[in-house]
Amino acid sequence: MNAGSVAQTLAERLVAEWYSLDESVIPAHVHAATTRCIKDTLGVALAARALGVGMAGVQVALQDASVPQSALWGAGLRVSMEDAALANGMLSHALDFDDTHAAAIVHSSSVLVPAALAVGEAVQASGRSILAALVVGYQVAARLGRLAPGPFQDNGFQATSVLGTFAAAIVAARLMRLSPDQALNALGIAGSMASGSMAYLSDGSDVKQMHPGWAAMSGIRAAKFARAGFRGPRAIFEHRLGIFHSFARVDITDTWRDACGAPWEVALMGPKPYPACLCVHAPVQAMLQLRSEGWVSPDRIEDIREIRCEGPQWYRELVFEPAASKIAPRTPYEARFSAPWSMARALLDGGLDVRSFSPEKLSDPVAGALAARTAFTAEELPEFPASFPARVTVTLADGARRSAYVAHNLGTPGNPMTDDDIEAKFQACMAAVLPPARADELSHCIAGLVEGNGAQQLFECLGRLDPAGMQPEISTYKETEKC
Amino acid sequence: MNAGSVAQTLAERLVAEWYSLDESVIPAHVHAATTRCIKDTLGVALAARALGVGMAGVQVALQDASVPQSALWGAGLRVSMEDAALANGMLSHALDFDDTHAAAIVHSSSVLVPAALAVGEAVQASGRSILAALVVGYQVAARLGRLAPGPFQDNGFQATSVLGTFAAAIVAARLMRLSPDQALNALGIAGSMASGSMAYLSDGSDVKQMHPGWAAMSGIRAAKFARAGFRGPRAIFEHRLGIFHSFARVDITDTWRDACGAPWEVALMGPKPYPACLCVHAPVQAMLQLRSEGWVSPDRIEDIREIRCEGPQWYRELVFEPAASKIAPRTPYEARFSAPWSMARALLDGGLDVRSFSPEKLSDPVAGALAARTAFTAEELPEFPASFPARVTVTLADGARRSAYVAHNLGTPGNPMTDDDIEAKFQACMAAVLPPARADELSHCIAGLVEGNGAQQLFECLGRLDPAGMQPEISTYKETEKC
Repeated sequence: MNAGSVAQTLAERLVAEWYSLDESVIPAHVHAATTRCIKDTLGVALAARALGVGMAGVQVALQDASVPQSALWGAGLRVSMEDAALANGMLSHALDFDDTHAAAIVHSSSVLVPAALAVGEAVQASGRSILAALVVGYQVAARLGRLAPGPFQDNGFQATSVLGTFAAAIVAARLMRLSPDQALNALGIAGSMASGSMAYLSDGSDVKQMHPGWAAMSGIRAAKFARAGFRGPRAIFEHRLGIFHSFARVDITDTWRDACGAPWEVALMGPKPYPACLCVHAPVQAMLQLRSEGWVSPDRIEDIREIRCEGPQWYRELVFEPAASKIAPRTPYEARFSAPWSMARALLDGGLDVRSFSPEKLSDPVAGALAARTAFTAEELPEFPASFPARVTVTLADGARRSAYVAHNLGTPGNPMTDDDIEAKFQACMAAVLPPARADELSHCIAGLVEGNGAQQLFECLGRLDPAGMQPEISTYKETEKC
Repeated sequence: MNAGSVAQTLAERLVAEWYSLDESVIPAHVHAATTRCIKDTLGVALAARALGVGMAGVQVALQDASVPQSALWGAGLRVSMEDAALANGMLSHALDFDDTHAAAIVHSSSVLVPAALAVGEAVQASGRSILAALVVGYQVAARLGRLAPGPFQDNGFQATSVLGTFAAAIVAARLMRLSPDQALNALGIAGSMASGSMAYLSDGSDVKQMHPGWAAMSGIRAAKFARAGFRGPRAIFEHRLGIFHSFARVDITDTWRDACGAPWEVALMGPKPYPACLCVHAPVQAMLQLRSEGWVSPDRIEDIREIRCEGPQWYRELVFEPAASKIAPRTPYEARFSAPWSMARALLDGGLDVRSFSPEKLSDPVAGALAARTAFTAEELPEFPASFPARVTVTLADGARRSAYVAHNLGTPGNPMTDDDIEAKFQACMAAVLPPARADELSHCIAGLVEGNGAQQLFECLGRLDPAGMQPEISTYKETEKC
C-alpha cells in the first residue's frame, strides 16, 4: 500500500505493502471470505480430531504441561501457543480436506488459521485484528506461491509449509505488534526454519499431515526471535542462496518486481469438496458426472474396460504413479493421493467423504480391481494451475466410450462452492464431532468473530470443546493405525 | 554392526548398524573423545553467553515458563528440553567457535551435545548412556555428511542443521528408549523438519547462529512424534524426493550402499582454535606463520603490497566474496566469515580469540585497509575437504614475496589440537565466564560424566551456572547490537 516502489528486496516489499494494512480498509466481503476460511478449517480439523487422524501433535502437546495460552482444539484445554499451532495445524491438514489457493498451490488456511487463533488467543487480540492479520497472511502466502507454482513440489518440498512459514511469521508478528523492521527480520529468520519434504510420496507415510502445523509453529518462533532482536537476511527470497533458488530452483531476480496477484487473495481460497489431494478432485468429479449420467454404475463395474484420465503432467507423480501403491494404497494417507483409487471409491459410493478412506474401505478388493483398470495420459490443459482440470474417458467392454471434462474443479474460483455448499460441508464434518446444538453454537461464534468481543467468545467455545463432546462411535476410527 | 546388509534404505541401514549400539563396546578413547567434544561445546557456548552473543534463544525460552526439565546454560534455571536444546545449541554455534567434522563439513557437536544433555537430563539418563547416544549421533551425522560434503552449502543449505536434525533425532530417540522402528520413523519425520538457509551470507545477519539449536529442537520433536506412533518415509535420504536430491541435488542411489567412514566418527571431530568460519583458519594460520618468521609485522603494515590466498574454490563465496562486505564487515558475524579481515586482525593482534570480533575491533580502519589488499585465487588442493588447506603469499612494496602453506589447519586430524591446547581453549573461554575455581568444578564434572552418578553431578553444576557468575566487565559486550 505504501513504499513498495522503493523496496530493495521482496521481503521489504511484502512488509511495506501489506504488513501495516489498516484494519478499517478491509471490505465486508473480505471479512466474510476470511471467516469462511476459519470455519472450513475448524470443520475439517475437528472432523480429523473426532476420527482420530493426525493426532500426534495433540499427543505430544499433552505429554508435557506447557503454559496454558491457546486452545488445543477438541482437547478441552490450553497449551503454549506454539504447541497449539502445531497440533491444530496438523489436525487441519490431516484429512487433506483443507482449502487451497490454487494459483499459488498453497494450503494457506491450515497454516494461517491455527497460527492466528493460537497467537490471537495468547495476546488477547480482538476479532478484527485477528481477521486483519489473517488477510495479510493470505496475501503473503499467495504472492510467494504465485512466483513458482509447482517447482517447490517438483524439487521435493511442499510449498504450503516452506512458504507458509513466512506467512505465519507475518501473522504472528502482526498480532504480537512487532515493528515493520522486526517483521522483516522475522521473514529472514523464517527462512532458516522453512521445511517440508515431499518424500512421504515414497511410501504413503503420514508426515505431510504435520507440515502446516510445523510451519505455523515455526512462524510464531520466528516472530519471537525477531522480537528478541535477532536478525535474518532481507534478501531471503531472491538471493542466490535464498528460498526460491534453493527450494524451487527458480530465479525470481527479474520477475518479483513485476509480479502481482489478486487485491484480496483470501477471496480466492478454494474449499475442498473431497478429503483428498487436489489433483484427485477433477477426475473424481468427472467420474461422478459419468455416474450421474448413468454411463457407469456400481452395479455394472464389470462392464468397464478402461478408465483413462487426461490431465497436467504434474498429476502423474502425485496421484497416478507408482501404479502399485496407487492401485492398492497401503495407508489411508496414500489413498488420498491416489486418483485411480479415489475415482473407483467415488464410482462405488456416489461421492467421497471423511469416511471414504477408512481402513475398512481400503481393504475392499472391488475398488482396487477398478483402480487397476485406470490409465493416465499427460496433456497440457489451459485451466491449470488456476484450476486443477481433468478429462476422464470410460471405455466399456463393448468398445463404447464416453468422456467428461471438468475444466474447473469444484471449489476453485471458476466453479466455487456456494455458501450453502460450505455450510453443508461444515455440518457434515461436525456430524462426527458434536451434537447439532453445539455445532450451531460454534458456527455462531465463528460468524461473530468480527463483532466486539467475538474473539473472546470463540476462544471460550473452542476451549470448551473436549473429547467427551466427540461422537464416540466415530472416535474409535484411528487412521494412523497401519492397514 | 548387524543387519546392515539387508537394509533396503539408508535410514534402515543407519538404524540397523548404529542405533542399538551396545554401550559396553565403546572403547575408553571414544569416551574420551566424546567427553572432549562436550567440554569444547560447553566452553564456547558459555563464552558466547558471557559475551552476550547468540542470546535470542535464551530470551525466547525465558519469556514463557515451560516445564523445568533441562538446564538453560548460564541462566541458572531449567526449561523444557526443546527450549533448552534450542537456546543452548544456539549459544554453542554463536561464536562460530564450535568443532567440525571436516570430511562431512558438519558442526556435529553444536547440534548433538545440546540435544543429548537436554534430553539426558529430562529422562535422567546415566552418563554412559548419554555418551553412547552421542557416539551414535556422531556416526549418523558424519555418515550422512560424507555422502555430499559441499553440495548442501552450494545449494543454499547448511549441512549442519539439515543433517544435524536427523542425528539429533537419533540421539533423542535413543535416550527416550524408542524402538528401532520408532527411531526409523523419527528419521523420516525429521526429514520434514530439516532446514537452515545459507542466505545469511547476503548481509551478515546472524540467523545461522540459530541453525544447530533449531536442528536439536527439531530432532527432539521428531523423536516425540515417532513415539506417538507417527510415521515418516523410510527412503527419506535416497528417494527421488528425498533429502540428498532435494537439498543437495546429489543422487546417492548408487553410492550409499558402498559408502563408509571412520569406525568412530566422534574421534575425528576437530575443535577450532579461532572463533571464525573454518575456511578462514588456514589463511589465518599461514599469516601467523609469516608473522612469527618476522616476514610481516604490525609495525610495518605499510610495507605490504598484496596478500594473496590460494585455496579451494569453495572458499570464494563463503569467505572472500563479495569483496565489499569482506573488506569492511558490517557485523561481527560477517567478520567471522571474512578471510581478508580475519587475516588482517590476526596479523595485527598476533592471534584471534573471542574478543577479536567485537564492535570496537570492527571499527578499526587499519584492519580494513589491510583486508583491501587481499586477493584470492582458487586452486585445487589435495588435502581438501579432509582438511581446509590454504597458501598465503605476501608481496612487499619492494617486490619481495614469501609464501606459507598450511596443508592441515590446526584442529583437523592431520594437525590435531592436543589435550593441552583444548584445555587452554576451555580455560580461555571460561575466563570470560567464571572464576577459576568454578571453572575447575565444571571441568571436573565433565570429566566425571563417564562415572556412576556423573550425569547428575554435571546437570546440577550446569543448573547452578547463572548470570551472576559471569564476569561483569565482559558480559556488557553485546555482539548482536548493530555496528
